[in-house]
Amino acid sequence: MNKVITINREFGSGGRELARRLSEELQIAYYDQEIITAIAEETELSEEYVNNIIYRKPFFSYPITIGNRFYLTGDQMFNQVSKVSRAQSSIIRDLAEKSDCIIVGRCANYILREQHPFRIFCYADMEGRMRRCREKAPADEHLSDSELKKQIQRMDKNRTNYYETFTGERWKDWLNYDLCINTSNRVIKDIVPYVAQLFR
Amino acid sequence: MNKVITINREFGSGGRELARRLSEELQIAYYDQEIITAIAEETELSEEYVNNIIYRKPFFSYPITIGNRFYLTGDQMFNQVSKVSRAQSSIIRDLAEKSDCIIVGRCANYILREQHPFRIFCYADMEGRMRRCREKAPADEHLSDSELKKQIQRMDKNRTNYYETFTGERWKDWLNYDLCINTSNRVIKDIVPYVAQLFR
Repeated sequence: MNKVITINREFGSGGRELARRLSEELQIAYYDQEIITAIAEETELSEEYVNNIIYRKPFFSYPITIGNRFYLTGDQMFNQVSKVSRAQSSIIRDLAEKSDCIIVGRCANYILREQHPFRIFCYADMEGRMRRCREKAPADEHLSDSELKKQIQRMDKNRTNYYETFTGERWKDWLNYDLCINTSNRVIKDIVPYVAQLFR
Repeated sequence: MNKVITINREFGSGGRELARRLSEELQIAYYDQEIITAIAEETELSEEYVNNIIYRKPFFSYPITIGNRFYLTGDQMFNQVSKVSRAQSSIIRDLAEKSDCIIVGRCANYILREQHPFRIFCYADMEGRMRRCREKAPADEHLSDSELKKQIQRMDKNRTNYYETFTGERWKDWLNYDLCINTSNRVIKDIVPYVAQLFR
């Protein structure tokens, strides 16, 4: 069995950066957006649409002209969501079988539960998350504190909805993780060597 | 500033063993029951009574003949609880100033918050906690699964009550900790070297 690390994270907690740097430190593969691309290829849906399904509100309340740009019935919509879910599970299982790797989000901790991956959850206080978001924002983004806070809360809500619909479990139940790391006042680069020690 | 590690833990999660072994590994002091003894000395109350205050229901519902064995009015009771709380804070601050150390429970993560100790929380699933409790139980203890589960839940409720009354914060809010470790299927002895790496 390969060494597989899954990283779930609150929006703005630096979980993606942790994953990327940890993969460099451990010299193992790292999968994030690649999974969306692979799902899009397998399902023949656009990446944007797959992203909508994964991070918006699965099963419910889609505008009726997205995706393939024709009207979908409830049944057709349900079929597409199921297709994406199946593709996601199968792609993540394939990646975990291929080599040691780190997988960000996408319910990988749940999908791979029988293989016992090491499951990390990154979280941080709102102040730390807002600071991190501002550091990474495009130069032309000018959100007020209140707008940014709302955006962070909305992204977390999307992740919660998706996780809980897909897995039937609570996203923030710490029993779903082996290690939960508070990144509030931490520089991710400094955490990485310590976390990496867990896998040597 | 000394290196101070605080360890809070669900009952049966092995947090006390983690603290003890970690202190051996790092060769630093470890305080647990010693704090109760020191509080008892400072307040001139019995250790049993101090324990009652700390781990039962602070402020409320004491039998009226415990402690010094005379009847206490509500005000007197409140005074004793406050005295224990003040002694606890001052003793924990003194210990943290004395040398590098690990402190188990007793709201030390909260009391020392301005010194930024490294705050660990240990948790585990019910199955893991029951197994750990059975391993450590005295030979003459014969609780059924359901009795043991109730005991574990009662202990956690006591810890929750005490923490939340003392600090005004939620015990299981992971923002109160830097690292939360799931010990469900882990042997504490095997975790220790990895956790110790964080402090080297």
